[in-house]
Amino acid sequence: MIIVMKRSASQEDIDTMIANVEGLGLKANVIQGTERTVIAAVGEERVAGISSLESGPGVDEVLPILAPYKLASRELKPESSTVTAGSLSVGNGTIGVMAGPCSVETSEQILACARAVKASGASALRGGAFKPRTSPYSFQGLKEDGLKMLAAARDETGLAIVTEVVSPDDVDLVSEYSDVLQIGARNMQNYRLLEAVGKSPRAVLLKRGPSATIDEFLLAAEYILDGGNLNVMLCERGVRTFESHTRFTLPLATVPYVQQRTHLPIVVDPSHGTGHTSLVTAMSKAAIAAGADGLIVEVHPNPDKAMSDGYQSMNFAQFEQMMTECRRIAEAVDRELGAMVAV
Amino acid sequence: MIIVMKRSASQEDIDTMIANVEGLGLKANVIQGTERTVIAAVGEERVAGISSLESGPGVDEVLPILAPYKLASRELKPESSTVTAGSLSVGNGTIGVMAGPCSVETSEQILACARAVKASGASALRGGAFKPRTSPYSFQGLKEDGLKMLAAARDETGLAIVTEVVSPDDVDLVSEYSDVLQIGARNMQNYRLLEAVGKSPRAVLLKRGPSATIDEFLLAAEYILDGGNLNVMLCERGVRTFESHTRFTLPLATVPYVQQRTHLPIVVDPSHGTGHTSLVTAMSKAAIAAGADGLIVEVHPNPDKAMSDGYQSMNFAQFEQMMTECRRIAEAVDRELGAMVAV
Amino acid sequence: MIIVMKRSASQEDIDTMIANVEGLGLKANVIQGTERTVIAAVGEERVAGISSLESGPGVDEVLPILAPYKLASRELKPESSTVTAGSLSVGNGTIGVMAGPCSVETSEQILACARAVKASGASALRGGAFKPRTSPYSFQGLKEDGLKMLAAARDETGLAIVTEVVSPDDVDLVSEYSDVLQIGARNMQNYRLLEAVGKSPRAVLLKRGPSATIDEFLLAAEYILDGGNLNVMLCERGVRTFESHTRFTLPLATVPYVQQRTHLPIVVDPSHGTGHTSLVTAMSKAAIAAGADGLIVEVHPNPDKAMSDGYQSMNFAQFEQMMTECRRIAEAVDRELGAMVAV
Amino acid sequence: MIIVMKRSASQEDIDTMIANVEGLGLKANVIQGTERTVIAAVGEERVAGISSLESGPGVDEVLPILAPYKLASRELKPESSTVTAGSLSVGNGTIGVMAGPCSVETSEQILACARAVKASGASALRGGAFKPRTSPYSFQGLKEDGLKMLAAARDETGLAIVTEVVSPDDVDLVSEYSDVLQIGARNMQNYRLLEAVGKSPRAVLLKRGPSATIDEFLLAAEYILDGGNLNVMLCERGVRTFESHTRFTLPLATVPYVQQRTHLPIVVDPSHGTGHTSLVTAMSKAAIAAGADGLIVEVHPNPDKAMSDGYQSMNFAQFEQMMTECRRIAEAVDRELGAMVAV
Repeated sequence: MIIVMKRSASQEDIDTMIANVEGLGLKANVIQGTERTVIAAVGEERVAGISSLESGPGVDEVLPILAPYKLASRELKPESSTVTAGSLSVGNGTIGVMAGPCSVETSEQILACARAVKASGASALRGGAFKPRTSPYSFQGLKEDGLKMLAAARDETGLAIVTEVVSPDDVDLVSEYSDVLQIGARNMQNYRLLEAVGKSPRAVLLKRGPSATIDEFLLAAEYILDGGNLNVMLCERGVRTFESHTRFTLPLATVPYVQQRTHLPIVVDPSHGTGHTSLVTAMSKAAIAAGADGLIVEVHPNPDKAMSDGYQSMNFAQFEQMMTECRRIAEAVDRELGAMVAV
Repeated sequence: MIIVMKRSASQEDIDTMIANVEGLGLKANVIQGTERTVIAAVGEERVAGISSLESGPGVDEVLPILAPYKLASRELKPESSTVTAGSLSVGNGTIGVMAGPCSVETSEQILACARAVKASGASALRGGAFKPRTSPYSFQGLKEDGLKMLAAARDETGLAIVTEVVSPDDVDLVSEYSDVLQIGARNMQNYRLLEAVGKSPRAVLLKRGPSATIDEFLLAAEYILDGGNLNVMLCERGVRTFESHTRFTLPLATVPYVQQRTHLPIVVDPSHGTGHTSLVTAMSKAAIAAGADGLIVEVHPNPDKAMSDGYQSMNFAQFEQMMTECRRIAEAVDRELGAMVAV
Repeated sequence: MIIVMKRSASQEDIDTMIANVEGLGLKANVIQGTERTVIAAVGEERVAGISSLESGPGVDEVLPILAPYKLASRELKPESSTVTAGSLSVGNGTIGVMAGPCSVETSEQILACARAVKASGASALRGGAFKPRTSPYSFQGLKEDGLKMLAAARDETGLAIVTEVVSPDDVDLVSEYSDVLQIGARNMQNYRLLEAVGKSPRAVLLKRGPSATIDEFLLAAEYILDGGNLNVMLCERGVRTFESHTRFTLPLATVPYVQQRTHLPIVVDPSHGTGHTSLVTAMSKAAIAAGADGLIVEVHPNPDKAMSDGYQSMNFAQFEQMMTECRRIAEAVDRELGAMVAV
Repeated sequence: MIIVMKRSASQEDIDTMIANVEGLGLKANVIQGTERTVIAAVGEERVAGISSLESGPGVDEVLPILAPYKLASRELKPESSTVTAGSLSVGNGTIGVMAGPCSVETSEQILACARAVKASGASALRGGAFKPRTSPYSFQGLKEDGLKMLAAARDETGLAIVTEVVSPDDVDLVSEYSDVLQIGARNMQNYRLLEAVGKSPRAVLLKRGPSATIDEFLLAAEYILDGGNLNVMLCERGVRTFESHTRFTLPLATVPYVQQRTHLPIVVDPSHGTGHTSLVTAMSKAAIAAGADGLIVEVHPNPDKAMSDGYQSMNFAQFEQMMTECRRIAEAVDRELGAMVAV
């Protein structure tokens, strides 16, 4: 870590800082600049208490040098990880495609979706039973009934189930019926929930919060890894910006950036990332071209009757067309798109 | 709600949309523009299923007319609400000041804080026992031990206790020891937690998420009000922007904007809102001048030894000086600053 | 346009608004909602004075219905436009690739670049002679000397020249030496400059400002079109967000969104859009997969000696590899990458 | 500057970087960390070519230590500057108030404004004659006719004139009729214009661009100072964020932050900063409480007939009330509000 002292810092301030740095078990290197003094603190930057250095007398700024995450880091584990869960495989050349409705609504709806997305080549079925909704007046999901419908769809089709869990208390229940626990964007920093899924035997899909920095995103993954669950996929689903014509702004550069820094696979959600059905195919293709390890896409038998997110859901024909186009891009980057894995 | 049809929409598309609108129990007014057709749907916009209209054939955009929140709305309750909790009163001319450390660290530390902030005129003591931290390697709080230390400080000083709760399972425990349950910014959309505090007898301080719109913020409050708890304060603590010299960007216009729309009082957190001790006094004064109903400020006996947030904490002398300056601003807006209320 | 009246608006307020609407030559349709009155104003929304309606008594909000741009709109001109300039063709299936250094530094440097990018399949040479720099202490460009070096490179290689113009006074001079006038992001709303290039016979590459909405971006194009110059390319080069690991955030959904709304071709700048050489290839491929009509990429013989933007420039081998990979993506979307057009 | 090498950097990479640092006339201090090597480069960081270090082999990141601006820095000139221009004085305890319409529309309108704002205690008259407008179809200003109307208003009232200049070619003309040249937010990085006003004898009001960082803002001021014009005021007028209920987000923490770093006075524009008349008074008071050296406010005889920005303009009675309330806040911070200075 680099501690930049103010121009007005006294020798006493510098001495205090050196003592504080050494008190944390770090080695202090003092560099006398032409205008300011800088102290380079060498050692394990991630120790508790280090942020207090910023409030020392005469300090202008503290600049970290090391990435704040460890277990998620490619420096620790150079080879890319593959996440597997039932019929789904993500990473190391296989692009996993998870598709299905925003909300599970009826047995018929979810079964129809499962059959259709399987036929088009998806490798897992997504669908929400516990729905975190912005308004208390919106449909909140079918809860356990929805989970049962998902499990029935898996029984018929063999597709792995991806579904959201919103509370630590529900982790066991949701784990019983599903293959992948989704942590939604609003819960990316719900640390109790991260700790709970960190102890689950299920794979985890961790969505980026809409204003989370990449470091915060990887630190959220670190909570899960630190709990002992190494089967973690990251998901870029768009960040919040001033642009209002799209629901969120989908920063695909996250894909190669994160792949350089972490061994965890990263998937992209072009449905939430754009908020318009008409933009989903283009962004799915772009995600694959950028190197994404997977996609998660909203598909509904009848989007204009959907109980949630209809405006960003594809119907079956649109999804079929999208998969056809994506397959060509996958080939152009020497990857394979979305096959189901034999379990 | 206003449904804007595409220029290319057919008469059949328009008829379908009219049927969909009427199917939701709304009345459809068709306005034939020079370039496009617009349908004004009159009635209760907040019904489940309304978002599906956006995915109808030939639809370009759907523009809501009514605010999405009801119980929080000043249209429903025109007179401003006062929130009270032990020695703390916020709203209707009384500016409540909550002050104390980011984390409870020791009995001595929290008692020293309580005495100092009381002496300077604060009306409540803040301090975190359950700490949501970005990194799993950071200090996570003393948990129930910390709550006991807070309660002991209340016993001695009479100050109401404000402390964060991070999980629905902890609401009863935290309620036992404290007067105000704080919902942190990361948990603003943790709906299970909002539902849980909505059933608690304690007052709630709801912090705005760093990328939450004002509508989302008020809808989060709506969850709590809808649960039956009407003793809710809003807290503006800064939003995330491109500017990196401050930790967050503190948009004080939220204060008058929200006061025009809702009856709930709104307090400001200048410590998180700026991230630098040297900016806290200026922003506290600005918040009061803008009409804020309260402040929540980080104070620590020795900020450069703090286990969290030292760089944005004031020491006792700084807080005393801040309160003196704020008192003058409060007088200039005909309000009273921070007295303790006799219980 | 839809005028939403406040719940508290009086009949007199409503009558005043109707009169104001009619005074602007629009027709007022009054819709009596259950909670509020809404006035739909039908007619040409783009008349001067219309924004004053927002300040009328009893008005809560004014919602525009029509896009604010006309000449740029696909509603006016449904078929996609092709922009041509010397060896460069962009749009309607041809992906134009403009490549070269951030700044023209020497004759040798720019000639070496021209030969290399031509060999790799670029269709135009980019290079800055007039440089807008954040700091007055940075290299400001070689100005007319740089233009002459660019023209010499065209003479030898036949590549069209793309170079930035920063002042209306320079438009004639820059037009003399170049084929495409680039309007940089910082000047997207320099309306005098837009007017000046609107009267030039040269093609224009208009970069999006880092905080410009898509509507503002298309309105900037509208200034140029309105001046009579129809040979305009749009360029997405990233917007400013909270994320600091990339220089800007590159929102590729702009590509399909804009293509649905406007007939103008849109190119992508992955160099500024990411700020890191190591991310440029992935984002170039993603841009093409998303449907971009062109790329503009920074290439330098020796990036770690570049006078500007070295950290985001490719060397010749990297560019050659990028073009090879992009060609495969272009084929997968049935387009042709970057050939020089015979003039 | 601190150069952080990658973990994978070889000794050869490190040696190359040391040579590059020394080639720029800086001294290289090598610090061997536990995980990475860091090179602290000591000397003048602002030399041309320094950014090229970021693209050296094995480099992970380059962190600047020194602020990039010099002439604007309080380190260079510790005492606060006062800007004066005719009847206007800003800084060192005097809060200058510039008020008037967005656009000069008629002689009657501007004269009425001048009389009213003078009567309420303003110290200068603002009004736009050259208007940069987002749409080419909006009113573009009266140009020289408008300047003459402003000068006539000054002749009658003695108020200094603040008006925008949008092109280097107009600087002489605008200087002839006005006392303060305003650089609008859209032109903050129009460097030719900054250079031109840097050579003008008139004071300058430099508005922050809506996505400019504070460093970029102060570097824009640096261009003007570097041209020889030291009579420069900064103006915070809001940044662009995801929040759409206000036109921009007004970050008042800019005021104390900038005052700690620069000697230049800083004024606040609550009209553009909020975009709603109903929020202007609260934010004016907040700005003064935060320590702002001045205000610039839109006032119009009849906002609902204004040709631009009516929704954020005050009428005369609203402005009179605002000034009364602001005067109380100014007293509470021991400053004087808005008197005209005898010339």
